[in-house]
Amino acid sequence: MEANFSRTQSDRKKRQAKKFGDPNNPLLVSSRSGAKFSMPGMMETILNIGLTDEVVRGIIDTTGNDRFAWDSYRRLIEMYGTVVMNVPDEAFEHPLAEYKYEKGYKLDIEMRAEDWQEIVGTYKQVYKQETGTDFPQDPYKQLSLAIEAVFKSWNGKRAVAYRRKEGISDSLGTAVNICTMVFGNMGEDSATGVAFTRNPSNGKKTMMGDFLINAQGEDVVAGIRNTEPIEHLEKYMPKAYKQFMKITKRLEHHYKEMQDVEFTIERGTLWMLQTRNGKRTAKAAVKIAVDMANEGLITRDDAILRITPEVVDALLHPQFGDAAMEQAESEGKFFARGVNASPGAAVGQIYFEADTAEKMAKEQHQQVIMVRPFTKPDDVHGMIASKGVLTSEGGATSHAAVVARQFGIPCVVGASSIKIDLEAKSMTVNGTTLKEGDWISVDGGSGKVFAGKIPTTEPTLEEQTELMTLLKWADEVCARKNIRKGYPSTGLQVWANADYPKDAQRARLYGAVGIGLCRTEHMFFETRRLPIVQQMILAKTSTERIDALNQLLEYQRKDFDGLFEAMNGYPVIIRLIDPPLHEFMPDEEKLLEEVITLRATGKMQGLKEKENLLSVIRAMRESNPMLGLRGVRLSIAMPEIVEMQVRAIFEAASDCVKRGIKAKPEIMIPLVGTVKELEWIQPRLESIAKKVMKEKQIKFTYKFGTMIEVPRASLTANRVAEKAEFFSFGTNDLTQMTFAYSRDDAERNFLVTYQEQGILEKNPFQTLDREGVGELMRWTINSGRETRPNLEVGICGEHGGDPDSIEWCHIIGNNYVSCSPFRVPVARLAAAHAALKHKPKKQK
Amino acid sequence: MEANFSRTQSDRKKRQAKKFGDPNNPLLVSSRSGAKFSMPGMMETILNIGLTDEVVRGIIDTTGNDRFAWDSYRRLIEMYGTVVMNVPDEAFEHPLAEYKYEKGYKLDIEMRAEDWQEIVGTYKQVYKQETGTDFPQDPYKQLSLAIEAVFKSWNGKRAVAYRRKEGISDSLGTAVNICTMVFGNMGEDSATGVAFTRNPSNGKKTMMGDFLINAQGEDVVAGIRNTEPIEHLEKYMPKAYKQFMKITKRLEHHYKEMQDVEFTIERGTLWMLQTRNGKRTAKAAVKIAVDMANEGLITRDDAILRITPEVVDALLHPQFGDAAMEQAESEGKFFARGVNASPGAAVGQIYFEADTAEKMAKEQHQQVIMVRPFTKPDDVHGMIASKGVLTSEGGATSHAAVVARQFGIPCVVGASSIKIDLEAKSMTVNGTTLKEGDWISVDGGSGKVFAGKIPTTEPTLEEQTELMTLLKWADEVCARKNIRKGYPSTGLQVWANADYPKDAQRARLYGAVGIGLCRTEHMFFETRRLPIVQQMILAKTSTERIDALNQLLEYQRKDFDGLFEAMNGYPVIIRLIDPPLHEFMPDEEKLLEEVITLRATGKMQGLKEKENLLSVIRAMRESNPMLGLRGVRLSIAMPEIVEMQVRAIFEAASDCVKRGIKAKPEIMIPLVGTVKELEWIQPRLESIAKKVMKEKQIKFTYKFGTMIEVPRASLTANRVAEKAEFFSFGTNDLTQMTFAYSRDDAERNFLVTYQEQGILEKNPFQTLDREGVGELMRWTINSGRETRPNLEVGICGEHGGDPDSIEWCHIIGNNYVSCSPFRVPVARLAAAHAALKHKPKKQK
Repeated sequence: MEANFSRTQSDRKKRQAKKFGDPNNPLLVSSRSGAKFSMPGMMETILNIGLTDEVVRGIIDTTGNDRFAWDSYRRLIEMYGTVVMNVPDEAFEHPLAEYKYEKGYKLDIEMRAEDWQEIVGTYKQVYKQETGTDFPQDPYKQLSLAIEAVFKSWNGKRAVAYRRKEGISDSLGTAVNICTMVFGNMGEDSATGVAFTRNPSNGKKTMMGDFLINAQGEDVVAGIRNTEPIEHLEKYMPKAYKQFMKITKRLEHHYKEMQDVEFTIERGTLWMLQTRNGKRTAKAAVKIAVDMANEGLITRDDAILRITPEVVDALLHPQFGDAAMEQAESEGKFFARGVNASPGAAVGQIYFEADTAEKMAKEQHQQVIMVRPFTKPDDVHGMIASKGVLTSEGGATSHAAVVARQFGIPCVVGASSIKIDLEAKSMTVNGTTLKEGDWISVDGGSGKVFAGKIPTTEPTLEEQTELMTLLKWADEVCARKNIRKGYPSTGLQVWANADYPKDAQRARLYGAVGIGLCRTEHMFFETRRLPIVQQMILAKTSTERIDALNQLLEYQRKDFDGLFEAMNGYPVIIRLIDPPLHEFMPDEEKLLEEVITLRATGKMQGLKEKENLLSVIRAMRESNPMLGLRGVRLSIAMPEIVEMQVRAIFEAASDCVKRGIKAKPEIMIPLVGTVKELEWIQPRLESIAKKVMKEKQIKFTYKFGTMIEVPRASLTANRVAEKAEFFSFGTNDLTQMTFAYSRDDAERNFLVTYQEQGILEKNPFQTLDREGVGELMRWTINSGRETRPNLEVGICGEHGGDPDSIEWCHIIGNNYVSCSPFRVPVARLAAAHAALKHKPKKQK
Repeated sequence: MEANFSRTQSDRKKRQAKKFGDPNNPLLVSSRSGAKFSMPGMMETILNIGLTDEVVRGIIDTTGNDRFAWDSYRRLIEMYGTVVMNVPDEAFEHPLAEYKYEKGYKLDIEMRAEDWQEIVGTYKQVYKQETGTDFPQDPYKQLSLAIEAVFKSWNGKRAVAYRRKEGISDSLGTAVNICTMVFGNMGEDSATGVAFTRNPSNGKKTMMGDFLINAQGEDVVAGIRNTEPIEHLEKYMPKAYKQFMKITKRLEHHYKEMQDVEFTIERGTLWMLQTRNGKRTAKAAVKIAVDMANEGLITRDDAILRITPEVVDALLHPQFGDAAMEQAESEGKFFARGVNASPGAAVGQIYFEADTAEKMAKEQHQQVIMVRPFTKPDDVHGMIASKGVLTSEGGATSHAAVVARQFGIPCVVGASSIKIDLEAKSMTVNGTTLKEGDWISVDGGSGKVFAGKIPTTEPTLEEQTELMTLLKWADEVCARKNIRKGYPSTGLQVWANADYPKDAQRARLYGAVGIGLCRTEHMFFETRRLPIVQQMILAKTSTERIDALNQLLEYQRKDFDGLFEAMNGYPVIIRLIDPPLHEFMPDEEKLLEEVITLRATGKMQGLKEKENLLSVIRAMRESNPMLGLRGVRLSIAMPEIVEMQVRAIFEAASDCVKRGIKAKPEIMIPLVGTVKELEWIQPRLESIAKKVMKEKQIKFTYKFGTMIEVPRASLTANRVAEKAEFFSFGTNDLTQMTFAYSRDDAERNFLVTYQEQGILEKNPFQTLDREGVGELMRWTINSGRETRPNLEVGICGEHGGDPDSIEWCHIIGNNYVSCSPFRVPVARLAAAHAALKHKPKKQK
């Protein structure tokens, strides 16, 4: 080992030569919570100690650099005072600011040696005033108090809060490291710099860094002097450069990760000050992981685990291009930065009031960004109408943040540098003012806000070869046998929810290997079909109803045909009609208004008809439609509709098979609560299936199954599985019933309060509630497979695209998850993560 | 043994003397399903055989009674033909009717010996025509075919249907008994009669029966001759009478039940033909059970088990008095009889159409009985407005029956003798016609319908001393230790749901030992209070809200004070506000109509105010209020209301304690889904409790607990029990959520279809669904007691008064059930039944 990672690792001789209190060697006392070096965002307390009047005089005597000596001394007194002795920051900041004001200085760099010397005197007085004691002139006393302070910091407010947030145990404890410092500002044979071992922006395998000759680390970061690119170091100090390249390569190999290093060269000797895993963009992350796996540095499994599913999401959603962002910054368009509360890029015109925002969006068809100091339930309608939301107050769990995430609206909160003037309808940062109607660009991913419009890009999956590779590997992980105990022994498959052939095509493109949910009723809402649906509902005789249904049959057969064709060879789960019939009828309230107006104004024409229609619609009204006549209940009351649907499915499938397409229909019966519902309806439908196949002289396999969305179906899953050949968790409704939350009502209402108050950690409609709904699902699977050991189990609620929920689906033994086609890549990676994280322990 | 219970038990000598084919001894072939003698409603096939031309001639020769001989012979041919040979009844009935018509006879008794002889000839022809063979003249052939017929009857349609209904196993098989007959019509030294060992009407311990000298059993039943009371038998045949009294006493002792016996005295010898447990009125049942226990004939536990909880219900609900019914019958007011579909006595004016029925009830305030051939969902509003329902078609699971039971409306269905003329708005039976608006009386308990009004009586519990005794014994059973395994080891307590002091008083009177549910919001709906509640809801500032709440506090404190006083020493569970706030606001639709009308007519006065109120109410609207902002969710959003309520409770309790009353308040927090809700609200409320007790300088014990009505609370019961000191199952809501049924919508809608179609056996809102909701409850208790072993568990849903549900509550380990005060006696008995039926098996 040629270089020294820190003084503690340097050769003993040198160490012994440096004495404590040596002006060249102030000590550094720091703590890290013990766990592991690379823990992200680790809390750290760093203290410089070892300077006293005597030591400072020694430094000046030895080096002649009195400005360096006095500046270092005042820093030390301030840091020591605030950290060790709890002197408030202002006690030091105020006198310094006053001094600079009197002298007419703006920046610290204008301070000369004698200025700092005077400040040291002031600081010593402040120190005595605040602590009642003189600043200690014994380095050993400084050391012991500093050590004590580090240990105390473990129970400091910030440290405790941080541990809570990150789930770090309180009993872990902290360590104290003591080491001497090196200096990059000891002359032209000294330097300091920072570097990434690969390009953190695009992931290319080239070292990227900056350095300065004769400087300290903070000079590099401060950007006061122009740094030089790392490769120039070779010119100035070829030996050190060569050594640096060798060490960084070794570090990358050691940590098997791209490194972000800090180094100092003191009088020709290279010292590595720090190394840690480098931060990078989503794009770089994927490239580096895939490259490293291809280089053999890490395994493919490691590569998969390095990329969080959120990264994949970011890569597939509209975003501001890197170049565009950089350009905007260079053009001075950067406006403010806040908390990145809800990801995505949004560009729009600003409005400061919910009603106006909604109006501009709906009536003027503007792209709107709603700006508020903070939001309240009254503002939700404006937020929903907006492309993005920006607030100057609040944190990641504020009302605005919670609501924005709920509705997938890009959002930055707590951008506290912004002053909002609601009266004037404007906002200001550092003298730049934007008014109502001005354009801004909000990056919910980074929390940055820009004035003006930044172009967004919408990347496609096909163009991202490294991502394609990674997802292929992810699929391979899931396809491995015995990755789970019991049935199924392979990992999760990823299917997609698709109502139309074009959705199914996208699903295939994004790697889905089945349709987990086709909502047939969406087909009913189309403009040309809706009148026929209404005719069917209002039919007074069975003949009338069958007439209307026969018309619908044509449409539905065509829809299904396209689906089977797109999914050639893959299963397609088609859910029979689910919503209550009144959803297909004209709006009751509007009709009521018309009727009352006609009556009040004495216009009788058409009144009778409208009154009749109104009374029909009223008769359909339910006090809680969510818990009413829909799903299988509707099918039992009015079997003609689903009989038509099953005929359409099997006719379409037969036609496809005749054309050489492999159709694999699976019929899903929704809202089942007892096996007796299936016992009633399933034989009727199966007989239609058989009849159609006989008519068409075609045979193919099919399944009948059920959605699990009613708690009672879960609780009696062993019975339900007697008839159902597959289960698909409708976790949206299952969550509604299990929590007794009406999603529409709750998400705009108490659910926000609940998250703000910490009663719910996450929105259970976005991330499966493992403790309640999740355990019920586990029970359901185990119970269902008691009856039918190879029961196919999936999930088709929105949770099917949420990584945390996908992990749970893996743990409890789902066969697949099904989500929106756009989420399929995310789900594929998440499924592989789950498989790798929960590998069964090997039997000894 | 002096008497012969049947010929099979008679002495061998006599039996041997009687030969098969002996004219005096036709054989009787019968079957009984093997189980046990007293199985109620047992299927039985009885066949007389053994008569041939030769035997008949012999009887005539021997006895000279040719009418008896020919009549017996024709009966035998008819019975044999229809039962053994499947000849249709009409084949015999038609010729007989024709014969009587020609002769001008009305009754069979008018038929002379030669008439019967001629009929025998006709019947033989019919027999040959229908079967292709002559009526067998060999008694042995008759015997063997008869035996075969009995065995075949086991798989007959009726027998199979009966077994299905009663849950009797198909594999049980039937037996064939063959015995010879005795005759009570052999002269003045012969007699026949029937008797009950106690009075079946009032239960008094006196033999009650009738007999006829020189007659057969059917003569007694037919009522053609005037029977004599059983005690007169002593005069005619003192020896036989003495023997009869001795035997019946012995029979009662043997069966330990009141016996219904049939006997025949043949030439001075007493033969007991049959004994079985006698049918009796509800009142008699209770008296007999209590008397027998007091006599030492049975144990108190036996007495309890003999009385079904429904009997208690019948004794406490309005009913037609026995005397009144008898009088009505004697006055010829009996109109028709149908299936007793829903119990209770109803008197009202008949209407044949739902709209009219509703209108007459609501607008004219008439007592209405709705009469229809059958009902459909469109008729439900009329049924609900009626006091009773009568249909001429349908059975016990028909729409009318299901809906009537649902809403507790007395109902008789399938009274098929009634011809309903919907056009003429009238109904007719045997020439008696009743028109729209006429009065009828419907007895849903017996299925009887009378023309005119029969007075109803409403019995009180206090007057029924035997019932009081029985219920006291029932309580003693439940109070026994170790009647259950685990905790609690005693049986169920019975508490009551009571919102007002007067309900609480009734609850105590009926034997409740606690209040399981006091719904505080009912107090809010009272006329004087509602405006204050609305003021509180509409308050724009906290001051305004607190003002309104302080007014409500006075009212609530008074309510609670009365409750504590009534329940002195017994626990009172008070549920904090539960319903959504919009329930306290004016009707949205009505307001909308007003606003639209004002707008349409250009009247602007008051429009603005109404519009404002409308917009406030609209903002409160939820798409599924059942799953919305109510219960604890409302309390977290607006804690001021429950804070007021808790203050009112503890102020009232303190005041009571000061007056020497033992107040035991238990505060119930509704709609909890996660323990975090309790963690948020409970400490706030507990601090108020402590504050009030400090202010009042009083200390008493109290509990905070939760209602279990959200499936998630059940699933995470171990967590919820960390805070909750008691659980009370709100099974109404728990059933709604678990089934995903909105009760209001479902009961008028698909729930009826589901019961008609057998998808649901029972209405799960009336009887706990053990398989789904019930198992969830069991899980909840076990899980909750893992955390808190002595967790107090109750039920306060409507199921708390349903015997089947009460049994389940016992099985799963509830501490108590709570029901309406009127159901308390029923519940006390049901609780004792459960305890006795599910005694833990003794450890060996």
